[in-house]
Amino acid sequence: MRDYVEIGIGREARSTYHLSDVSIVPTRRTRSSKDVDTTWNIDAYTFDIPVVAHPTDAVVSPEFAIEMDKQGGLAVLNAEGVYGRHADADAAIASIAEAVKQGDRAATRALQELHKAPVDTDLLTEHITQIRESGATVAVRVSPQYAREIAPVVIKAGAELLFIQGTMISAEHVQEGGEPLNLKEFIGSLEIPVIAGGVSDYTTALHLMRSGAAGIIVGSGDTTSESALGIGTPMATAIADAAAARREYLDETGGRYVHIIADGEIALSGDIARAIACGADAVMLGAPLARTAEAAGKGLYWQSSAAHPQFPRGYVEMTESFEADAEENVASLEEVLHGPSSDPLGMFNVVGGLRRAMAKCGYTDVKSFQKVQLSLN
Amino acid sequence: MRDYVEIGIGREARSTYHLSDVSIVPTRRTRSSKDVDTTWNIDAYTFDIPVVAHPTDAVVSPEFAIEMDKQGGLAVLNAEGVYGRHADADAAIASIAEAVKQGDRAATRALQELHKAPVDTDLLTEHITQIRESGATVAVRVSPQYAREIAPVVIKAGAELLFIQGTMISAEHVQEGGEPLNLKEFIGSLEIPVIAGGVSDYTTALHLMRSGAAGIIVGSGDTTSESALGIGTPMATAIADAAAARREYLDETGGRYVHIIADGEIALSGDIARAIACGADAVMLGAPLARTAEAAGKGLYWQSSAAHPQFPRGYVEMTESFEADAEENVASLEEVLHGPSSDPLGMFNVVGGLRRAMAKCGYTDVKSFQKVQLSLN
Amino acid sequence: MRDYVEIGIGREARSTYHLSDVSIVPTRRTRSSKDVDTTWNIDAYTFDIPVVAHPTDAVVSPEFAIEMDKQGGLAVLNAEGVYGRHADADAAIASIAEAVKQGDRAATRALQELHKAPVDTDLLTEHITQIRESGATVAVRVSPQYAREIAPVVIKAGAELLFIQGTMISAEHVQEGGEPLNLKEFIGSLEIPVIAGGVSDYTTALHLMRSGAAGIIVGSGDTTSESALGIGTPMATAIADAAAARREYLDETGGRYVHIIADGEIALSGDIARAIACGADAVMLGAPLARTAEAAGKGLYWQSSAAHPQFPRGYVEMTESFEADAEENVASLEEVLHGPSSDPLGMFNVVGGLRRAMAKCGYTDVKSFQKVQLSLN
Amino acid sequence: MRDYVEIGIGREARSTYHLSDVSIVPTRRTRSSKDVDTTWNIDAYTFDIPVVAHPTDAVVSPEFAIEMDKQGGLAVLNAEGVYGRHADADAAIASIAEAVKQGDRAATRALQELHKAPVDTDLLTEHITQIRESGATVAVRVSPQYAREIAPVVIKAGAELLFIQGTMISAEHVQEGGEPLNLKEFIGSLEIPVIAGGVSDYTTALHLMRSGAAGIIVGSGDTTSESALGIGTPMATAIADAAAARREYLDETGGRYVHIIADGEIALSGDIARAIACGADAVMLGAPLARTAEAAGKGLYWQSSAAHPQFPRGYVEMTESFEADAEENVASLEEVLHGPSSDPLGMFNVVGGLRRAMAKCGYTDVKSFQKVQLSLN
Repeated sequence: MRDYVEIGIGREARSTYHLSDVSIVPTRRTRSSKDVDTTWNIDAYTFDIPVVAHPTDAVVSPEFAIEMDKQGGLAVLNAEGVYGRHADADAAIASIAEAVKQGDRAATRALQELHKAPVDTDLLTEHITQIRESGATVAVRVSPQYAREIAPVVIKAGAELLFIQGTMISAEHVQEGGEPLNLKEFIGSLEIPVIAGGVSDYTTALHLMRSGAAGIIVGSGDTTSESALGIGTPMATAIADAAAARREYLDETGGRYVHIIADGEIALSGDIARAIACGADAVMLGAPLARTAEAAGKGLYWQSSAAHPQFPRGYVEMTESFEADAEENVASLEEVLHGPSSDPLGMFNVVGGLRRAMAKCGYTDVKSFQKVQLSLN
Repeated sequence: MRDYVEIGIGREARSTYHLSDVSIVPTRRTRSSKDVDTTWNIDAYTFDIPVVAHPTDAVVSPEFAIEMDKQGGLAVLNAEGVYGRHADADAAIASIAEAVKQGDRAATRALQELHKAPVDTDLLTEHITQIRESGATVAVRVSPQYAREIAPVVIKAGAELLFIQGTMISAEHVQEGGEPLNLKEFIGSLEIPVIAGGVSDYTTALHLMRSGAAGIIVGSGDTTSESALGIGTPMATAIADAAAARREYLDETGGRYVHIIADGEIALSGDIARAIACGADAVMLGAPLARTAEAAGKGLYWQSSAAHPQFPRGYVEMTESFEADAEENVASLEEVLHGPSSDPLGMFNVVGGLRRAMAKCGYTDVKSFQKVQLSLN
Repeated sequence: MRDYVEIGIGREARSTYHLSDVSIVPTRRTRSSKDVDTTWNIDAYTFDIPVVAHPTDAVVSPEFAIEMDKQGGLAVLNAEGVYGRHADADAAIASIAEAVKQGDRAATRALQELHKAPVDTDLLTEHITQIRESGATVAVRVSPQYAREIAPVVIKAGAELLFIQGTMISAEHVQEGGEPLNLKEFIGSLEIPVIAGGVSDYTTALHLMRSGAAGIIVGSGDTTSESALGIGTPMATAIADAAAARREYLDETGGRYVHIIADGEIALSGDIARAIACGADAVMLGAPLARTAEAAGKGLYWQSSAAHPQFPRGYVEMTESFEADAEENVASLEEVLHGPSSDPLGMFNVVGGLRRAMAKCGYTDVKSFQKVQLSLN
Repeated sequence: MRDYVEIGIGREARSTYHLSDVSIVPTRRTRSSKDVDTTWNIDAYTFDIPVVAHPTDAVVSPEFAIEMDKQGGLAVLNAEGVYGRHADADAAIASIAEAVKQGDRAATRALQELHKAPVDTDLLTEHITQIRESGATVAVRVSPQYAREIAPVVIKAGAELLFIQGTMISAEHVQEGGEPLNLKEFIGSLEIPVIAGGVSDYTTALHLMRSGAAGIIVGSGDTTSESALGIGTPMATAIADAAAARREYLDETGGRYVHIIADGEIALSGDIARAIACGADAVMLGAPLARTAEAAGKGLYWQSSAAHPQFPRGYVEMTESFEADAEENVASLEEVLHGPSSDPLGMFNVVGGLRRAMAKCGYTDVKSFQKVQLSLN
């Protein structure tokens, strides 16, 4: 049943699918959405909702991280972004807001400029301390390139979950004449759980699991890798393949369960439901949270790959709440996550949407909802 | 031949199809459209045309219901909408017309506000009496949630057909700590025929048939469940699956025929023909009737799920006849159903379109037209 | 290899294809386009190019028919249109040009109004005489409904080829209480060759061939049957199916060859090449010829079904040359057919385009080009 | 697994794919982009990057060819374009820039007019000498029609690589009463390596290889052959088929390797990666280079087939850098090829994009990257 198509004589390609290609199929039993449990447990940490804020300065300030914890989710602070490099993050972000009015490339250049400043470990320690002292779970992202250098700093400062996240990573990064990052060794040397990604295929996912990660990130958010590199990550297939790797690894290890966090193609509440239905344990949200009143970017959105000095991948985007007359579209984080909503598409009350999707199909918990029947549109 | 596709390793999804994906294939014999019989019989009721007006205050006032009966069809009054809650329905609808000018979400909020008022059973009784006294068939819609409470009221007032209609219902609604609605028991306790829905899959359809319904509604009209819940209802597949359930149930019961009413993806006369060709006995029309001069919403359209207090699904839409200079597009109910038309797309004379589709393929009655050959575009 | 898909449990639909879905595949040999022969022979008539002007008053006036003959093709006069009903055709067409500025439906109403006048047989005779006296081949179209009444008139006046053309016809039209048109008997009673259509499926095509037609028309031009009736005619499949019927009928009769004229989805020179590659012997052009300086409609286009009094199917379209500042786009019939062209899409020099398509694949005549290899996009 | 679909009874078409239909699949190993080698060797010539500038006057002046060599690639001078016919090429190009403001067809007519002048062999010799004296590799394009006449001139003047390039060519061009170009004989008679094309199918590709060409061009750039001729060249399939022909020819000859240069559907860096992943050895870039400050067309782009006197195929396009306020989008050739970039789509630093695509999949050289796994979107 695996679908390989011959695109030319002797050359095959496998058919892959986006989240928007699939739909969830109801069952003969419905439930009340009040009876749905959305709890997500990873390692020793428990969250009321399976929602993680993408590590970008456009969303996650220390204050945002604290509020996200109150709302039941997890926010990841980017150690190598504006907050890790500039004491006056507000001024830095204001400079991007200024540049974006001059066009896409001006905004990218402003971002590139801001990322030339070195990472300031004192500043970083201060931000982490602020989150830790609030009682919120502290999650911090480092890049694969600088993980060896910065991870010890953030762990020492109090990080409880480490995200090693690039657009595409592998368990084995080879570099001529340099010293490659051996993830397995590196993760083994750390005292806190690691979540690593993004990955988009079965083999890389399985190898990342074998490296000792507590969770892997499938997808690479809102990058432009499809047009810039020719590398696509249709998320329905990527998530389902990672879930197959999880089954394989469970079997290999006699029961070690590695979590899958989906990061890409998720804009509306129905996309969250689809991602979980394909096999995800939790979802990472970027632009949908950048729209909230609490977001650090004040309505702008970008992700770390958008700041690459030679070859950026990802735009500085203006969300609906960036516009001058955007009052209508600014909502609190609480409204975006838990409603109530006056928008019929599922931009707000996204957790309520997930609850209702599960309830309409008779499911009560996230894990079993991964088995709901799917259809292709 | 059933088409399951592997979307990821070990995860399959079934291919499904929209009405717009299918076309009707002519046969070697043509007929005159005058020789086509569009009669629809359900229980003891006979209608000249297989067309039911969707239960929304945007379309069905008591006056509209009476006119629909004169034109040969059936209109369903919504017991839990504006007409059931506000004595001055015109003022209520005017407030929505005012709000819609301020944007989609303002319109939704106006709708949510209007639905906070309680259902007024005296008012409801008055409306039902008005329809009954005209001699028209009285059909009333209640929601699954409030069916037990409101159904007795409307039946006592004279309802002849009861529609229990939500966006997605099942024969078995489970609720922790509450008392679920057991449809089979409930329907068995009523003295009038029940039509229940919407459903979108074979299993739910079969279970609903077993609950004793005289008809089931396939689809959920113009909701946004696809984006908000990730749950899609491609109507060609949903109708054909329900028709398979009907065959199964006919066999189980030795001949009890349950009607299928299609509610979704039907905008033009060709869509009516396609829905019947896929297996429907009748179609439910919403927005196409909201455009008529007789519609209660004066050119606006919405359906009940658009008024949900926390998680609305469906927009308040402006049909072509809402616009200031819309004279061109306002047509009487008679014109929309029976023509004559000066529009080539099939917005008007929709029953004439169905007649001609059947005639071009040599069919004379609706039931046999369900077997016409189909093609995929 | 025939492709039936299960759209719902127990309900299948056949996959069908549009001309735009297919492409022509070159072969290892190329030729000069000057060596290509586009001659088309049907019955005793020979044409330099396999191009027929669709029978609409928007294109074919008596003068246009004469010019089309000079350019090597065939134009069909509509016996039941404006030219057959109004002595002052220019005034009639001017009234449509006036109405179209007020919108689509006003234009349709103007057309409906003009078609209320009776067919004037003297006028018709006059037009036919004019064409005949020029030495051009005289082809006239009658509708299936009025064929028995009007065909004798036009034949008496000098028609050499009779087109019996509706949007969809069959060899067996059944009418309760009326007298059906038995095409086989009717065609047998006439002394001139008949070309009949449109058809869109194998069975109807085969039955039409058995009725004695010299040619059949596949497709129904630019109608809106897809949206208004749910009946589609993807032309690649329709032409290839008709070609299969032609093979079957050749075998049945031991060699009687019935011509296939494709009428639909043909706008550019590449579409002409595709239609022939799928199996057509000639193509019917409507809107592409309505754009010429010689066209009767002065840049407007419509076809007879657009004038239906109750249920029109097809728009009054404004081609590029109708616009006020359209000088750039008005071209002579000669330019549209034979070039030279300064347009890269294939709107002009359409026969040159066909010649080059054939030459690039190494073919020298239309009949053998029907066997060129195809690909699906 | 080869995918033939029955488009009509007894008529099949093969499914084909565009570059945009395929994506590259990462592997479990990643590398540093600095370790990637993009060297391309053809015959005795070595280039740092597998990028060839399309032979059009809109891009390649003698000065551009010299700069392209400095940047590591190869530019092909068009012997039969503006530079070969007009001493004042700047004035000629300015006349096109003037005409394009009056519309597409005016631009095409200006181009047609300029190409009426005869090829001036002295002028051509002068341009070739200029390139040769700079030390850059000299590549010149002639058309199949005039190859016999002009090739000797350009070879005598110092051309080192001869491109015989038309939109679609074959190894065997048949012409009644004229003398066909037998490519095998012709190529055999020349003393420099020949690259010939474009081709779009396996058989033609194999026959061209057998004619002795050192390389073949797959595709025909930005022509409008799809709409004008009905002949399509979905590039993923065309390249993969040509790669299959290369394998066959390698086997036939016991090791003669013919290079594949992809020319079509390549706009962004990801498209370059896809073309190589499908089997290309190098890519030909047109419009992406026309945007550079060094391009001869000053922001306009067209290719030779756009100048055809009777049946042009291809537009005179305005690239982003033609517009008055286009400063933002004008980049140097170095920036377009090697960056740095502030554009996330892959318009700039296209070689950097290719390097990263290869590195993300663990590949170090172009040849082995032709084997990377592919997926279908």
